Amino acid sequence: MDRKKSISIKEIAKLSDVSVATVSRVINNNGRFSEETRKRVQSIIDEYGYTANMAAKSLRMSKSKTIGLIVPNIDNEWFSQLVLKIEKYFFDKNYSVFICNTSQDEEKEVAYFKTLDSKMVDGIICISGIEEIPTNAISRDIPIVCIDRKPKDHADAYYVESNHYSGSYLATEELIKKGCKRIAIVSRNKTLSVNKQRLEGYKQALKDYGLKEYTELQLLLEPSEANYEGARKIINKLIKDGIVFDGVFATNDWRAYGVMMGLAENNINVPDEVKVIGFDDIFISHSCHPSMSTIRQDVAGLAYKAASLLMDLIDNKEIQVDQRRFILPVEVISRDSTK
Amino acid sequence: MDRKKSISIKEIAKLSDVSVATVSRVINNNGRFSEETRKRVQSIIDEYGYTANMAAKSLRMSKSKTIGLIVPNIDNEWFSQLVLKIEKYFFDKNYSVFICNTSQDEEKEVAYFKTLDSKMVDGIICISGIEEIPTNAISRDIPIVCIDRKPKDHADAYYVESNHYSGSYLATEELIKKGCKRIAIVSRNKTLSVNKQRLEGYKQALKDYGLKEYTELQLLLEPSEANYEGARKIINKLIKDGIVFDGVFATNDWRAYGVMMGLAENNINVPDEVKVIGFDDIFISHSCHPSMSTIRQDVAGLAYKAASLLMDLIDNKEIQVDQRRFILPVEVISRDSTK
Repeated sequence: MDRKKSISIKEIAKLSDVSVATVSRVINNNGRFSEETRKRVQSIIDEYGYTANMAAKSLRMSKSKTIGLIVPNIDNEWFSQLVLKIEKYFFDKNYSVFICNTSQDEEKEVAYFKTLDSKMVDGIICISGIEEIPTNAISRDIPIVCIDRKPKDHADAYYVESNHYSGSYLATEELIKKGCKRIAIVSRNKTLSVNKQRLEGYKQALKDYGLKEYTELQLLLEPSEANYEGARKIINKLIKDGIVFDGVFATNDWRAYGVMMGLAENNINVPDEVKVIGFDDIFISHSCHPSMSTIRQDVAGLAYKAASLLMDLIDNKEIQVDQRRFILPVEVISRDSTK
Repeated sequence: MDRKKSISIKEIAKLSDVSVATVSRVINNNGRFSEETRKRVQSIIDEYGYTANMAAKSLRMSKSKTIGLIVPNIDNEWFSQLVLKIEKYFFDKNYSVFICNTSQDEEKEVAYFKTLDSKMVDGIICISGIEEIPTNAISRDIPIVCIDRKPKDHADAYYVESNHYSGSYLATEELIKKGCKRIAIVSRNKTLSVNKQRLEGYKQALKDYGLKEYTELQLLLEPSEANYEGARKIINKLIKDGIVFDGVFATNDWRAYGVMMGLAENNINVPDEVKVIGFDDIFISHSCHPSMSTIRQDVAGLAYKAASLLMDLIDNKEIQVDQRRFILPVEVISRDSTK
């Protein structure tokens, strides 16, 4: 037998006493295996001379031409725009896209990872959601690209996101430059990297401009309340409690809209008495009155980067270490609410 | 051999010289076969005494616990609400839902039918889209329930819809009752049953109240232009052309919003000079200024009826002929735009 050519992944798996999926992981070096396993598999590969090309070929042959797209909420315009652009990218390449809506339910996300895996999708794009990718829900070695989520303990994970920290800094700065001194933040009380970064950017801007950080102005809504209704209520409460503020940074446009509704209910003029800025630049931000200042994310850029990265992974192209993560810039859109 | 018990679908197929899928269709009487085929299969069944229970059992055994959901546009709130409610219904029953977005592209719809079929989903819910179900894209005998689409030449199809005719009649009547005499309709130029019914309801109301039908006030937008931007443009054109009108019925809320934008650009006051009514009762209708009158569809009812009908079909429950189609009532929501 020509040892250098004829050994299969299956044979390597048998010889190293691990699963085929594990061998595949080691070959593709995607990190989900122990160092001990890597050594054992590598020694068999070294001995028999299995080449990456063969692995690539074997993987290419099992394409199902479908991908899974996990999204927290398709009824949030920001997510639906991203989903539609990703869907278009793949459909144009003859891939079908199964969209799975998790409603930010962790159990549901895990269940969808499992189902997509069992339906033999070629890869998964996962938008936001839970912090850790439930890799134990995936039995096959398929690529996963995350958007707006920096997976924990995943040194070589693939992800694409906006510069949330910078966006948050710019939003706070916009309010400061327009004269605000007591700036509230209305955000979501969750430990996702996106939420953390947005809070940090706000704090840093206050610090850099020598403004005081007031804990009573850090309004962190529970995830189930982090919608426009929750923002409206919390602003009403803030006013009722007699807490003074002259600017509000809401970490998405829906929450900013709720803030503006709450202010209107209390006959507080925007922007004369309180200035407001949102995040995302969805339809509601320019259709409301007064029109809302916001931070625009590059939705087309995010969709393209994530989709093309997954496509390259599916095609077994080699991805350089510096091409595994992309952080896209954002920009301030100044409208009437911060005039 | 006990002829009454041991014959399988496969054997029936062989004896009647048709495919297994066709036998299954005949047994479930879902209509996708010729009368001649039905007779042939039935004669074999009569002779060998195959019972529906056996068919049910055989079908039950091959469940994949996934369903496909085909939707024209998840970024339209009306559709996304429907999708989320259907997804919840099935997920609570341990079914995964693959959402497939067609962007109203017929080719894409056919492709998704094929992919869902090859991925062994247990059933499909199809919202609006093309008129004929591409049944030739489906190789297996799986149930399909349509929402807002009355499939052509499908006497015993399963579908659920709102009473579009009645909704359109009520919307036009609301404008007439508030004093409008020259009522424009802004709709979509497509032959889908939903579009046809909405135009008919408008015409009938005008007729019943003795108002003249002006063809120059029937503004039918091309599908690619049938959004708020298209509606805004066509209202601007109508005004520029000097055509007089005092009421507008737009067949969805986004188009009604575009109409209101167009009127505002021309300093035409709503509701004093022109009254406007939409259809769907999505967020934009009560968040815009002035708030918009509209027709509310029972989205929860539609989702529940369609989902439970598909579930019953998947479970091989017998569906009475009068339980195959549901037309749900709608109601007028009067707000400031028709005051």
